[in-house]
Amino acid sequence: MSFARLQEKIDKLQNPTVVGLDPELSYIPTQILKRYYDEHGETLEAASMAVVEFNCGLIDAVCDIVPAVKPQSAYYEMLGPYGVMALHKTCEYAKQKGMYVIIDGKRNDIGSTAAAYSAAYLGTVKVGETEYMPFHADALTVNAYLGSDGIKPFIETAKMHDKAVFALVRTSNPSAGELQDKIITNPKTSTREPSPSTYSDSLVSQTLYTAVGDLMEEISKDTIDKYGYTCVGAVVGATYPEESKLLRERLKNTFFLVPGYGAQGGSAESAANAFDKNGKGAIINSSRAIITAWKKSGDDYTTAAREEAIKMRNELQKVLKNK
Amino acid sequence: MSFARLQEKIDKLQNPTVVGLDPELSYIPTQILKRYYDEHGETLEAASMAVVEFNCGLIDAVCDIVPAVKPQSAYYEMLGPYGVMALHKTCEYAKQKGMYVIIDGKRNDIGSTAAAYSAAYLGTVKVGETEYMPFHADALTVNAYLGSDGIKPFIETAKMHDKAVFALVRTSNPSAGELQDKIITNPKTSTREPSPSTYSDSLVSQTLYTAVGDLMEEISKDTIDKYGYTCVGAVVGATYPEESKLLRERLKNTFFLVPGYGAQGGSAESAANAFDKNGKGAIINSSRAIITAWKKSGDDYTTAAREEAIKMRNELQKVLKNK
Repeated sequence: MSFARLQEKIDKLQNPTVVGLDPELSYIPTQILKRYYDEHGETLEAASMAVVEFNCGLIDAVCDIVPAVKPQSAYYEMLGPYGVMALHKTCEYAKQKGMYVIIDGKRNDIGSTAAAYSAAYLGTVKVGETEYMPFHADALTVNAYLGSDGIKPFIETAKMHDKAVFALVRTSNPSAGELQDKIITNPKTSTREPSPSTYSDSLVSQTLYTAVGDLMEEISKDTIDKYGYTCVGAVVGATYPEESKLLRERLKNTFFLVPGYGAQGGSAESAANAFDKNGKGAIINSSRAIITAWKKSGDDYTTAAREEAIKMRNELQKVLKNK
Repeated sequence: MSFARLQEKIDKLQNPTVVGLDPELSYIPTQILKRYYDEHGETLEAASMAVVEFNCGLIDAVCDIVPAVKPQSAYYEMLGPYGVMALHKTCEYAKQKGMYVIIDGKRNDIGSTAAAYSAAYLGTVKVGETEYMPFHADALTVNAYLGSDGIKPFIETAKMHDKAVFALVRTSNPSAGELQDKIITNPKTSTREPSPSTYSDSLVSQTLYTAVGDLMEEISKDTIDKYGYTCVGAVVGATYPEESKLLRERLKNTFFLVPGYGAQGGSAESAANAFDKNGKGAIINSSRAIITAWKKSGDDYTTAAREEAIKMRNELQKVLKNK
């Protein structure tokens, strides 16, 4: 359960990477866009059709070597409801091709509304007596600022449908640390080994991001799968290798989704910190470097994406071998 | 600019309330659902059409007495892409009727992706040479866990298009305090008056939620409008009146969106803490109590919603008069 299906796809292809499908219109070759604009005008609907064609081409190009895709919801929502239709079609196509689908939506809300999001992306919705899987993804990214009762509905859905979520723990952006690195202080009741406290013997202190990581592991501990991971993974940026190392040591039952590789500056070496001693328990995302590879190489966009994906796989295999 | 348009609508109707449009299917009268199911089958598309009819009825019933609506995105997303189309239609209809539209999506991501969300909900998107406003809302709720560079793109869009966001500061759910109430410690460099520190003279401590509030006010301070508010408001739950009082005193330039009134247990008295001394600077949300009022009263759903909205307005006017 939980992340077992993902780990098995990774093992089969010997490739712990996920291709981020972030189809900003400027990333799509002009001839694709032009074809739809000529036929349907410069409309959000035409742009959404171009997105679907672009994504399907990318999926065809990598589905035999890459286990997963991660569509970033924002780039679909920015095309309005037709864009969300393109997200839906992209997910369906990737699943048909055997890929694991992680929707990057960073959803979050209070209990009943979190349940609605989990039904939308990971579960089922009843219309009269008929049941639907609205988006039918395998996993969804979520944000835990609201605390455990904003995450528990996702865990319930994940248990029921063999799905998973990734909660933001330490993100990859420059200002990630502004809140996430704050030192927080708790009464010394935690069973966790405390970070060294500089304030008082009766208190333990830690960063907010480790507290979020701890909380996520704690509330999902009854979902540990045969590989040792719960259904609540963690988003841990490749751009902060030290934080990633610390989290890997601390969160032994947490599967990591690692953004920030490639275009954002994270290297294979820094991404390697996210894996456990057996080289498992993490998946590394690359979006722009793969889907815009055609702009550098001059090749067809599918050929360029496949070559870049192979390059990334080989780099990760190399650092994992030396780990 | 900023929240001025909202404050003026509130002043005109003497009513600082927003109706939450959270159209769970069980909230919609059976005869509406049945009509669409009979015609189109029990499909997500039929359910989405019923949602639009339900919402338009609610908007017609309250638009002359309530200044704003807040569709909760989760309840639309759970019907898949057709549901998102229903969200779009709902927003368009509410705007036609002169209402201020707050999409409750709690969106969040890193810089370039946050820019995509802000374009989707508050700004414009270019398709070829043609510009669109994909969702065309007036405000969007956002989550600040990623720090300032996840919020700044929204501020840029808000400035350009006279829009606004509400960042989650202290939410209304039972586990809100798990992370939000953590005591965090900073070097004593802040110009803010520190909360009394119990740890060390050289450090100042505060809760995470006040730190988030401070950060949001700080990064938006160049957008203060004629009523004294920046374009980054704060979500502050009515279920925690003490926290709300503290935040109102602390964040003098922040407009509050207050959920948790009614069905979640917040009273008019506790909601009153969110207003400034002139009775301005806040808007109180009620969703279920208004949109499911027909279940209790037995009236037509539009009549019941209007009566409940009038009751809420009168309750708030009363406590504001006594403030």
